[in-house]
Amino acid sequence: MIVDCAHYRDGRRQHEGMMDARDAAAICRNEEGFVWLGMVEPAPDELESVQTTFGLHELAVEDAQSFHLRPKVEQYEGAVTFVVLRTARYVDEREEVEFGEISIFVGPGFVITVRQGAASDLHPARLRLESRPELLMEGPASVLWAIADQVVDDYAPVVEGLERDIEEVEQLVFSGSHAPTRRIYLLRREVTDFYRAVHPLLGPAAAITKGGVLPIGEGLRTYFRDVDDHLKLVDEEVLAQRDLLSTILQANMAVLSVEQNDVVRKISGWAAIITVPTFIASFYGMNFTSMPELHRGWGYPAVVTLMVLAGVLLYVSFKRARWL
Amino acid sequence: MIVDCAHYRDGRRQHEGMMDARDAAAICRNEEGFVWLGMVEPAPDELESVQTTFGLHELAVEDAQSFHLRPKVEQYEGAVTFVVLRTARYVDEREEVEFGEISIFVGPGFVITVRQGAASDLHPARLRLESRPELLMEGPASVLWAIADQVVDDYAPVVEGLERDIEEVEQLVFSGSHAPTRRIYLLRREVTDFYRAVHPLLGPAAAITKGGVLPIGEGLRTYFRDVDDHLKLVDEEVLAQRDLLSTILQANMAVLSVEQNDVVRKISGWAAIITVPTFIASFYGMNFTSMPELHRGWGYPAVVTLMVLAGVLLYVSFKRARWL
Amino acid sequence: MIVDCAHYRDGRRQHEGMMDARDAAAICRNEEGFVWLGMVEPAPDELESVQTTFGLHELAVEDAQSFHLRPKVEQYEGAVTFVVLRTARYVDEREEVEFGEISIFVGPGFVITVRQGAASDLHPARLRLESRPELLMEGPASVLWAIADQVVDDYAPVVEGLERDIEEVEQLVFSGSHAPTRRIYLLRREVTDFYRAVHPLLGPAAAITKGGVLPIGEGLRTYFRDVDDHLKLVDEEVLAQRDLLSTILQANMAVLSVEQNDVVRKISGWAAIITVPTFIASFYGMNFTSMPELHRGWGYPAVVTLMVLAGVLLYVSFKRARWL
Amino acid sequence: MIVDCAHYRDGRRQHEGMMDARDAAAICRNEEGFVWLGMVEPAPDELESVQTTFGLHELAVEDAQSFHLRPKVEQYEGAVTFVVLRTARYVDEREEVEFGEISIFVGPGFVITVRQGAASDLHPARLRLESRPELLMEGPASVLWAIADQVVDDYAPVVEGLERDIEEVEQLVFSGSHAPTRRIYLLRREVTDFYRAVHPLLGPAAAITKGGVLPIGEGLRTYFRDVDDHLKLVDEEVLAQRDLLSTILQANMAVLSVEQNDVVRKISGWAAIITVPTFIASFYGMNFTSMPELHRGWGYPAVVTLMVLAGVLLYVSFKRARWL
Amino acid sequence: MIVDCAHYRDGRRQHEGMMDARDAAAICRNEEGFVWLGMVEPAPDELESVQTTFGLHELAVEDAQSFHLRPKVEQYEGAVTFVVLRTARYVDEREEVEFGEISIFVGPGFVITVRQGAASDLHPARLRLESRPELLMEGPASVLWAIADQVVDDYAPVVEGLERDIEEVEQLVFSGSHAPTRRIYLLRREVTDFYRAVHPLLGPAAAITKGGVLPIGEGLRTYFRDVDDHLKLVDEEVLAQRDLLSTILQANMAVLSVEQNDVVRKISGWAAIITVPTFIASFYGMNFTSMPELHRGWGYPAVVTLMVLAGVLLYVSFKRARWL
Repeated sequence: MIVDCAHYRDGRRQHEGMMDARDAAAICRNEEGFVWLGMVEPAPDELESVQTTFGLHELAVEDAQSFHLRPKVEQYEGAVTFVVLRTARYVDEREEVEFGEISIFVGPGFVITVRQGAASDLHPARLRLESRPELLMEGPASVLWAIADQVVDDYAPVVEGLERDIEEVEQLVFSGSHAPTRRIYLLRREVTDFYRAVHPLLGPAAAITKGGVLPIGEGLRTYFRDVDDHLKLVDEEVLAQRDLLSTILQANMAVLSVEQNDVVRKISGWAAIITVPTFIASFYGMNFTSMPELHRGWGYPAVVTLMVLAGVLLYVSFKRARWL
Repeated sequence: MIVDCAHYRDGRRQHEGMMDARDAAAICRNEEGFVWLGMVEPAPDELESVQTTFGLHELAVEDAQSFHLRPKVEQYEGAVTFVVLRTARYVDEREEVEFGEISIFVGPGFVITVRQGAASDLHPARLRLESRPELLMEGPASVLWAIADQVVDDYAPVVEGLERDIEEVEQLVFSGSHAPTRRIYLLRREVTDFYRAVHPLLGPAAAITKGGVLPIGEGLRTYFRDVDDHLKLVDEEVLAQRDLLSTILQANMAVLSVEQNDVVRKISGWAAIITVPTFIASFYGMNFTSMPELHRGWGYPAVVTLMVLAGVLLYVSFKRARWL
Repeated sequence: MIVDCAHYRDGRRQHEGMMDARDAAAICRNEEGFVWLGMVEPAPDELESVQTTFGLHELAVEDAQSFHLRPKVEQYEGAVTFVVLRTARYVDEREEVEFGEISIFVGPGFVITVRQGAASDLHPARLRLESRPELLMEGPASVLWAIADQVVDDYAPVVEGLERDIEEVEQLVFSGSHAPTRRIYLLRREVTDFYRAVHPLLGPAAAITKGGVLPIGEGLRTYFRDVDDHLKLVDEEVLAQRDLLSTILQANMAVLSVEQNDVVRKISGWAAIITVPTFIASFYGMNFTSMPELHRGWGYPAVVTLMVLAGVLLYVSFKRARWL
Repeated sequence: MIVDCAHYRDGRRQHEGMMDARDAAAICRNEEGFVWLGMVEPAPDELESVQTTFGLHELAVEDAQSFHLRPKVEQYEGAVTFVVLRTARYVDEREEVEFGEISIFVGPGFVITVRQGAASDLHPARLRLESRPELLMEGPASVLWAIADQVVDDYAPVVEGLERDIEEVEQLVFSGSHAPTRRIYLLRREVTDFYRAVHPLLGPAAAITKGGVLPIGEGLRTYFRDVDDHLKLVDEEVLAQRDLLSTILQANMAVLSVEQNDVVRKISGWAAIITVPTFIASFYGMNFTSMPELHRGWGYPAVVTLMVLAGVLLYVSFKRARWL
Repeated sequence: MIVDCAHYRDGRRQHEGMMDARDAAAICRNEEGFVWLGMVEPAPDELESVQTTFGLHELAVEDAQSFHLRPKVEQYEGAVTFVVLRTARYVDEREEVEFGEISIFVGPGFVITVRQGAASDLHPARLRLESRPELLMEGPASVLWAIADQVVDDYAPVVEGLERDIEEVEQLVFSGSHAPTRRIYLLRREVTDFYRAVHPLLGPAAAITKGGVLPIGEGLRTYFRDVDDHLKLVDEEVLAQRDLLSTILQANMAVLSVEQNDVVRKISGWAAIITVPTFIASFYGMNFTSMPELHRGWGYPAVVTLMVLAGVLLYVSFKRARWL
């Protein structure tokens, strides 16, 4: 589905509403400025028609349709740069990172964006860019910046959501009430997936910032560097989270071991305390004819006292040895 | 065994059926276009005859015959490029990755392919290439692309098969019913083997894509880049799987520890509960002459009540302490 | 809040007290020497006014206001170098590293410094620099050196604080009295955070030292190299601490395991010792009519002796097997 | 001890039997072709005499005499290349890798080889080279190839021996009959030692293959590349084995944990089953005057039935909970 | 304290005994050859006077006085190269590596060496160099070589000492008599410290060997390469030791786990064996009026036999299951 299509010139949108794709192709060949065509999960025939209209490369269009796992930047003949960005959204209730994909064709006089999956809406990026004519005037590359900026900004809440859950898990581990191995494991899996969406973008982002992919003016370059900087920050944070979760998994095992230690120690301790009075009771249950104590009046209370004493003695010495 | 041998010119196969190897050698020296000779596990003398006919290097032919463990790209004198690719197939019932090998000699006017082991059939690659005259016209390098493309595409089901088994193992670990250490270990071993088939190909694939190995036209280069891109994806996925399996192994230990904890705790808990009534019973089994309770009518029911009370009290307090 | 603003020329401060920001801007455009303007957590409008007065880039000013996690060096048009440094302070009672941030704009004829959070006071740096006219004469870069020098020097007490706590934790682990998993984990988290403040600075610091960022005279370069050297030392120490804490976590688990072993062994050992006399008591509690021992005079003392003997025998053999 | 010394020219050995070292030195200065002098653990004075005769560097001769741990390639004045290779042999009964050392001096017109320790016999390498006049004609570098080829080929059985033992250990771990921690540890130590013999050779081998060390003809270069290729394969296999052994060590701990779990669970389970009938027996051992059941005819059989029932019930429920 | 000061020219020491520092400075400016001034833990004023006399840089002098943790090589104006080396000595009784520091100023016509802490005595290095006029003739760089050579040679006994202790620890771990977690941990800490003294020297050593720091003649270069080679060897050995100690720590945990397993299993096993006869005894302690066995003559011996049988049966079956 085509969601917007507009002609930009001299830093301003040339018209309200949506333009037809064919007209846009004609404009981008004949007039100054550039055209930005936005699509969301396009049907194969829609994409095919755009492909023929703008002369896009078959392989890039295939990539835009499928669901990749690697962000990338590629250059095709006819000065078309093809960029795939992975968008991410944190679903807190499921503790899952949901991924989407934005494919961007940046060609001479046109930008075509294709969103797939849970990708961020590009409308805010468009509005923000339209409000900055000085960047829009730099041409199609400014659209690439606007989208990359939004995608990378949207990584921040994911990092925060993961951070929050990591902190919850930390508290669970050290409160000792649960053994959240499963949750730690699944969080680590999400962090790894997210890392794989973020990390491979570092190389291409640096290349774009240095101007090695698209011709980029000095003014815009500063803005790309800003995106690159945020991306590096996200990358380092995710890496630190991965490391943290591995350490938590280990700490969790130590805590589990201590817990197990405590419970087993306490149960065995109590069982040991009861063992001695039980022995004494068994002792005086023996059927020997001549056990003088049995027939003395003080026998019974003396033995009860003995049992209590033995129990208390054991309890105190176990407490001292920190076994109870 | 020679399985196919054909002459390609101007992007089209020049004849139906299979050509003789000697004729092919003559053609590749005298006519335009190129010859593609396909062999499957050739006998030593077959390979030797092809070696002399096409003037291949002894060491490359040795490599093509043996069963290597490293994919590689090498250049020999006479502008012959020798490529070894590792093919992989996932055997789900045994949870094993089966490897094969395809050796490719790309020379001036000829391509010779040698399959060893459980290598993918190259017939589909041949058919797919024949249906794209514009690529076939680029000469022998197009055959290298067709094969590399198929080999790397065949890695995808392996990754998926491993992924499926990793998910099964995850469920087993966290359902707590089994302790699949052995399965985790063996899966990790398979993933490591697969990684060793995929990873060393990254360097050569990048070199081919940059045109540093064979002269490659702009059109074909885009297709090689596509293969390179898929390869990088597979490499990252396998690396992530390795990391995941290491984490599962650790999580498995934590889960085992919890399980052990639980069972030991429960058994000791129940044993401790029975200990107290047993003590009481032993107590009233003592043979003191003067134990007044023994001779009262309420003695027996009172003691039974005491036992039940002690048991219930212990049970409740153990439940509260989450020991049961 | 602007905390100081002064004009430096020929290696000396040109006046006592604080100059107005607008006057300073005028001076830095028209006169020789340079102006150093220092701000602490400036209000947005304060910063905005400085931004317009000195013509700073919007993105750099945004960065100076927000609270980053990455130190960095960036160059903006108009020969302005923008540096972000992370300051660190160790709060011993909470075993936490507190971070602050110093943003530095080094332009032609001016240096603007902005402190955020728990950042080190820059006054000592200013005084120290003012006492070295030969460095001050090298211009704005000398201010960058003075600040970087102080920030990196302030890392040393953090390293020492962490070192001290690591040593405390070591003693706790090996004294066996506690199981400080939580403390090890949290220390490691602090060390990781600190590492992330120090490590990304290595690249920019090396670049500045080589003169690739700012023009730096030979004299000043030596001083930058000195800072760079201290930074590398801190980086290596923090890395070693991280590694150490991971090892402590593992050692802690081994120690816990031994402790658990000991207690369980001892309790079970004592329980086992009491088991045998209890059996003997039960034995002679059997109600068989014909148990001759029961009716002999020596029966009772013999059995008591047997019990004591059994207990002693078990005790001795358990001691020998090191189970008690 | 000098074991062989021969003059090679035009690809052929010029004489049967061994030549005197002094004559060889004269020949290598005055005639075409080159001399290959082979020594095995030479006495200091033997080596010294060769040193003066051929003008070798003191430091290289020292290295050839001592027992190093690092393979290396070094160039000395007078166009002498000095190569140290580590040979390896797997001693299956002791599960140990035995190392030897071959030092090679390749100079203008001469090759001197010195074997130390359990180094592979070089005679086969000499014979194989002598049977290939086209390689021998390339001069001293061909001898370097012949030796390197043999040394690296001799690594393959070591890899296989280690592989075999790793598989044995795997079976031991998962058969659960033993806890081969010690064997895993020692194997890993051997693998690490072997890795240290193989890995540092990668750099020099690549340098030799690229022709950066010795002038090497195109023909010989292909053969060096073949050695380099085998070396890389060995390096990757050893690295994979190291990783595998680390994983086995972890898996071993998980398996141990399960085993421990099982045994403790079973013993406690059975102990718990016997606890209940014991309690019942103690119960009816109480001496209350008025326990009506005791004096009924059905009392005794009823209680026995109760005991059996309790035992069976516990057994069945423990079986269901998989505790037995 | 100045410990020696001599003038070297044409490869020979020009005089017996110690020269005055001021005279030395004059000589190094006016005469050929060079001066080597050696100091041990100099007082601040001593160092200051040398600093002014030879015109050394303030920062380098500061470094020479303090106690660093990083070896390094730096160049200062006036063609002065400043080298810091970390010396190491193994104190076997404390299992500790003691570090010292040697700072070396190599300038035109002079070498100044400053020893701090437990640094190796440089007198042997001086004597050894004096006995090799051909190296001494290469100027101040030869002194740098002599010192570096001695420092790196002194690393070898540290590596051996650590190796010896690692082997002791290995034996302790696998003899099962102790649980040397603490010792393993502390050894690993020492190895890490030592690694940090050795590793950062690799870069500067390579740079010096390549001649990128000081002008070094071909003859001396070979000797520097020899030092570099030894350093690499030490670096690899220390790295391997670190890895080994990590593996030992893990193996230790597995061994501990097995030990614990064994003891708990044995104690529980014996406890379980006694449980069954105890039950039988309790059984015949019941007070039922009609328990016919109690009144038969064979009852008592039969029950004793039953107890013994049960015990033996349990013992045998536990032995078979390897629980005892």
